[in-house]
Amino acid sequence: MLSSFLGHASAIAIASPVVSIVGIRRPIYGEMKQVGVVEKQREMPTFPQSFPMNGGDGPHSYIHNSSYQKVAIDGAKEKTSEAILKNLDLELLNRNSDASIVRIADFGCSIGPNTFDVVQNIIDTVKQKNLKEKKNNIGAPLEFQVCFNDQPNNDFNTLFRTQPLSSKQAYLSVGVPGSFHGRVLPKNSLHIGHTTYTLHWLSKVPQHVSNNKSPAINKSYIQCNNLVEEVTKAYEIQFKIDMGSFLEARAEEIVSGGLMILSGQCLPDGIPKALTWQGVVIDMIGDCLMDMAKLGITSKEKIELFSLPTYIPHISEFKANIEQNENFRIETMEEISHPMDYMPLTNDFITSMFRAILNTIIEEHFGDGVVDELFERLAKKLDKYPIDFKMCKKYVNYFIVLKRK
Amino acid sequence: MLSSFLGHASAIAIASPVVSIVGIRRPIYGEMKQVGVVEKQREMPTFPQSFPMNGGDGPHSYIHNSSYQKVAIDGAKEKTSEAILKNLDLELLNRNSDASIVRIADFGCSIGPNTFDVVQNIIDTVKQKNLKEKKNNIGAPLEFQVCFNDQPNNDFNTLFRTQPLSSKQAYLSVGVPGSFHGRVLPKNSLHIGHTTYTLHWLSKVPQHVSNNKSPAINKSYIQCNNLVEEVTKAYEIQFKIDMGSFLEARAEEIVSGGLMILSGQCLPDGIPKALTWQGVVIDMIGDCLMDMAKLGITSKEKIELFSLPTYIPHISEFKANIEQNENFRIETMEEISHPMDYMPLTNDFITSMFRAILNTIIEEHFGDGVVDELFERLAKKLDKYPIDFKMCKKYVNYFIVLKRK
Repeated sequence: MLSSFLGHASAIAIASPVVSIVGIRRPIYGEMKQVGVVEKQREMPTFPQSFPMNGGDGPHSYIHNSSYQKVAIDGAKEKTSEAILKNLDLELLNRNSDASIVRIADFGCSIGPNTFDVVQNIIDTVKQKNLKEKKNNIGAPLEFQVCFNDQPNNDFNTLFRTQPLSSKQAYLSVGVPGSFHGRVLPKNSLHIGHTTYTLHWLSKVPQHVSNNKSPAINKSYIQCNNLVEEVTKAYEIQFKIDMGSFLEARAEEIVSGGLMILSGQCLPDGIPKALTWQGVVIDMIGDCLMDMAKLGITSKEKIELFSLPTYIPHISEFKANIEQNENFRIETMEEISHPMDYMPLTNDFITSMFRAILNTIIEEHFGDGVVDELFERLAKKLDKYPIDFKMCKKYVNYFIVLKRK
Repeated sequence: MLSSFLGHASAIAIASPVVSIVGIRRPIYGEMKQVGVVEKQREMPTFPQSFPMNGGDGPHSYIHNSSYQKVAIDGAKEKTSEAILKNLDLELLNRNSDASIVRIADFGCSIGPNTFDVVQNIIDTVKQKNLKEKKNNIGAPLEFQVCFNDQPNNDFNTLFRTQPLSSKQAYLSVGVPGSFHGRVLPKNSLHIGHTTYTLHWLSKVPQHVSNNKSPAINKSYIQCNNLVEEVTKAYEIQFKIDMGSFLEARAEEIVSGGLMILSGQCLPDGIPKALTWQGVVIDMIGDCLMDMAKLGITSKEKIELFSLPTYIPHISEFKANIEQNENFRIETMEEISHPMDYMPLTNDFITSMFRAILNTIIEEHFGDGVVDELFERLAKKLDKYPIDFKMCKKYVNYFIVLKRK
């Protein structure tokens, strides 16, 4: 679920063009004319609850198209190690049994390979700390169990099949199917929780957006773009509820003294998502869909019913949500840079990355045969209207370490 | 992995026909003439390590073709409940945490639906016992975690997708990928272990059989049939090693006082597998493969390299293996009857059941396109040579409860 790159300069940009809202010289992506002609009343969306990254290990799989995320994770590796070395109290591990179990969970792990890197780094660090602190105290050896969590329709088969042999020797694995907005592990059973680029996934499209009596619904489609107040408010409320549920569930699962490490992306305060390059890409995808509706490949009605259950909060809003939880002490809350933020990405790279992220959700909603055509069109549109990365606003990357009180 | 129904009246029956060995009037299945012409030296088999039941939920899936196994499991349900009520000490549950975690594992769970029934029955029984014994002692509520274990190439996606909604509310689930011949869970973490119709799967084809220098290898193909001493000995040794590994791993995982419940099938002492109806069916499958080799659909060489890593021990041999383990006390060791042992099965039922069990292993070895043809031929052969159930010997069903010392 490493897909925080969902932005969307939506239909509403016609009525309130980007230029006038944020005062930049020209729209970053100007071809918006066909988008957003929302005439019909929307019905309740019929989304299932979760849309995992594209499974398997084919050319369009998340496995082969998650290097952008990998770079971000690599960037957070050292910080994760530092956090564990500084904050983890080894005494909290259960020393009553023959071996000391260290239970680690990656929430929203998707199908790898990034999750394997993440947990190996955590394990190596715990071992290093244990070796240093316990060198004169020969206790029971540490035994690691890693809980790979994601939605029940995540491709766990591929996750297990592609697990490196070395990891099988280093730790015991379990796949934990379930939404991380609720409890997925027993109480007081977890020592280190981790999640990266996942918290922008909501448990559902906000009620106020999907409720067809709301005036907001005709003003935005696909997802919240931070440009329409009513829509933004609805997403903001849903995000707050979901963050609350996430932290409450983790507080129950994590032992006192245990750690929860979070990283991901937010919008800088005051910046609408429409002005990020990711927002521009989703806008183009919206345009491509509308082009396809005109040709009868899909329908305008289907597009109007297409809402993404994702929300990128602003950084101060995100921090406020974290601070509101009383079960964790904040040990670290930093903004870090993504190494690829300052280099232009190729059109092929962008197309492949978004396909890996959106393949499942688009196929689920629009049916077979739409995805290939859509991303071929996106590739062409990107060639015709290359993204001006210098003009785009950048997401803020956060790195947070919480300690269970 | 509920597939103890693999029998095989093998090639060697030509040299040592069934009639002469067991003194029955005529061979139960007489068309053996083309089978077992093994002329070439065998090479090392190239099997992967595991062959799960047929995944998905299509017409040939294990999900829709496991009713024979279900009947056996239903038969053991009441015994399982009795065993838990009598032998489980609730005090062993960890009462230090907010909730008392009860961890249950089904080893070799396959993809359901039988595994869901099994664990629900265990949970209901533990709850019932807790309610009865703790009625005046309002402690922390019990929290159940179920560990669904099978080989990493088991279809966990289907398992999670088909899990009943009620079970999601009753317990937390994890999928545990790994061979149960080794450790798959942390030490001292499990309260009740369960396995049914799985222990006949070996960790590998015995070395003495797959070693092309052994004289035994040219005398038997597909699997041990208890008719050739050298082959039987090799399988017997491998089974002993694997049972030892299984019990040793469980002894490490299960807390002191915890239970391990086993059920499955053995051969009656002195009876070769070739004389069971399951053995007859595998023999027919062997014949069908040879027919297909003659037509060039597959090759005799491929058939000669086809060995199943399964072994049905004789009941006294099985009991001796259980008794040898010093970590468990034997609470119950019974022979029970399978409700379907005394009714003839239809040919459709037999064909579908064996296809669900053998689909993966046959496809893996013989490649695409062989399975459909093979089971069409099996259906025709069964019509032509119906199994005489009255003439067949019956497996012995065992039910065993072990308590961790």
